[in-house]
Amino acid sequence: MAVYTDVSEGELETFLRDYPAGKLLSYKGIAEGSENSNFLLHTSEGSFILTLYEKRVDTADLPFFLGLMHHLAGKGISCPLPVERSDGELCGTLAGRPAALITFLEGMWMRRPSVAHCREVGKALAALHLAGSDFSLSRPNALAIDGWHKLWAASRDRADEVEKGLSEEVDADFAAIDANWPKELPCGVIHADLFPDNVFFLGDKLSGLIDFYFACNDFYAYDVATCLNAWCFEKDFSFNLTKGRALLSGYQSVRPLSDGEKVAMPLLARGSALRFMLTRLYDWLTIPDGALVQKRDPLEYVRRLRFHRAVTSPSEYGLE
Amino acid sequence: MAVYTDVSEGELETFLRDYPAGKLLSYKGIAEGSENSNFLLHTSEGSFILTLYEKRVDTADLPFFLGLMHHLAGKGISCPLPVERSDGELCGTLAGRPAALITFLEGMWMRRPSVAHCREVGKALAALHLAGSDFSLSRPNALAIDGWHKLWAASRDRADEVEKGLSEEVDADFAAIDANWPKELPCGVIHADLFPDNVFFLGDKLSGLIDFYFACNDFYAYDVATCLNAWCFEKDFSFNLTKGRALLSGYQSVRPLSDGEKVAMPLLARGSALRFMLTRLYDWLTIPDGALVQKRDPLEYVRRLRFHRAVTSPSEYGLE
Repeated sequence: MAVYTDVSEGELETFLRDYPAGKLLSYKGIAEGSENSNFLLHTSEGSFILTLYEKRVDTADLPFFLGLMHHLAGKGISCPLPVERSDGELCGTLAGRPAALITFLEGMWMRRPSVAHCREVGKALAALHLAGSDFSLSRPNALAIDGWHKLWAASRDRADEVEKGLSEEVDADFAAIDANWPKELPCGVIHADLFPDNVFFLGDKLSGLIDFYFACNDFYAYDVATCLNAWCFEKDFSFNLTKGRALLSGYQSVRPLSDGEKVAMPLLARGSALRFMLTRLYDWLTIPDGALVQKRDPLEYVRRLRFHRAVTSPSEYGLE
Repeated sequence: MAVYTDVSEGELETFLRDYPAGKLLSYKGIAEGSENSNFLLHTSEGSFILTLYEKRVDTADLPFFLGLMHHLAGKGISCPLPVERSDGELCGTLAGRPAALITFLEGMWMRRPSVAHCREVGKALAALHLAGSDFSLSRPNALAIDGWHKLWAASRDRADEVEKGLSEEVDADFAAIDANWPKELPCGVIHADLFPDNVFFLGDKLSGLIDFYFACNDFYAYDVATCLNAWCFEKDFSFNLTKGRALLSGYQSVRPLSDGEKVAMPLLARGSALRFMLTRLYDWLTIPDGALVQKRDPLEYVRRLRFHRAVTSPSEYGLE
């Protein structure tokens, strides 16, 4: 939540000469996106987002991310469209960093999503999965089980600083996940980070999906499980079954889940909660207090883990 | 440079019902303004800035700040216009804080101002002084000499941590300023913080002045001196006489300086440099490293102080 790199008007105007973006009228650094520097531009052609990719993004992944947005927008998904440069590229260079100009989507992210919002995000996630199924590039999920083990190896010794007993508790999650993680489920391009701040609404109508910088190839149902974690828990960490049911039935109205996907849901949800707990825990333990990166409480995901451990049937998420 | 307070779409929509601002389409926290939380809004009526006033702003001063912008805009100064609520007020409440909706000004602030920009800012400053002369409210300058003494009393003992010898060096500035500060110069509403990031341009044309939250009543020539400090020094702390001449002649083309103001300029410039050195020094010594507030190097103003101490004639600033 910060602007890491400032840009002068001169270098920005030079950069924009390669784009059909009209005349620059204003640009403001915006406090969104935890990995990159983002600016909201007004030009004579409209509004755009300018993203400068900072160190945490591997530039080798940019053709996948930008190409995916371009592919999805072409299929009718409401997502930002990277503007093509006059040389046909989607990515340029600004202030020494890879940079992309993307279309601006109107809409607000919901600080307090309703049941109706959960249904809409379920439908949009399924539409995204279908639209991405013929995208030509692929990208392995850097935050799949192997990645979780690496994060845990780097954090386990200090996990009890966050809560006493946490290291043993999470060891048990790893044992269950390593033993039972599904091997054969429908796979394809997933968003992998479809939290409320990445989904815009105008009223109850979903107006856009943003931030594809964790997108990768993995189980579709794992993406659904991440949305259950992100959208269906209340601030007190209780699971709202009505929201779960709405999200899942919205999803299945577009792409029905197989029996195998349904059976796997409790473990997938547990794995997804573990993944977000681990990145938060790692940041919590390693990022100095003075850094610009916002640190978030890993215990919010320990609470979700405890819920998922106790689930005995997919119906407890609202799956029929 | 941060958003201190987040706002939900529901409370924002409720807040906007009191304004003729149309339908909310999007809002983004922007990384500008060091004291308050600012959002850039798009509505069906256009673009607006929403400012939430945080603790560092005294709410008793808001009628002065907002009324001044309203007054200046009415006189044709390009500055943000606080939008009137349906009850006629310029200030409402949002997320428990005083909040104002103000018009959005297109334009970019110049990271590297040119001579032409300095001339324009001089003209705009003089126009602001003339336009503010019949504003009905007044506000004492909290950062006048008495305020400097308070900051110095709180920082002097640790000043040598920043540079050895600094406390003695600055004591001498205080002695000179206390003995010789002018008592009778033309007075009125001044901006008091007209740095490059508070002035927007479209090309070489000045498109707006923003951030009136240090505005107060003081010597007009002191405001000019602050602009010399803010606009006419290069990154290596050399004074660019061509820029000084452009800024001063731009100013005088709208409001000629009196002989008394010209003679006082070296001491006013020294006092202004001292003022910015002191707030930076105080923040440097007191704000913890982890805070969101950006800390800036006080030595940049020690360098300016040294320049002003050596000035023997107003002509060294480009005054004729």
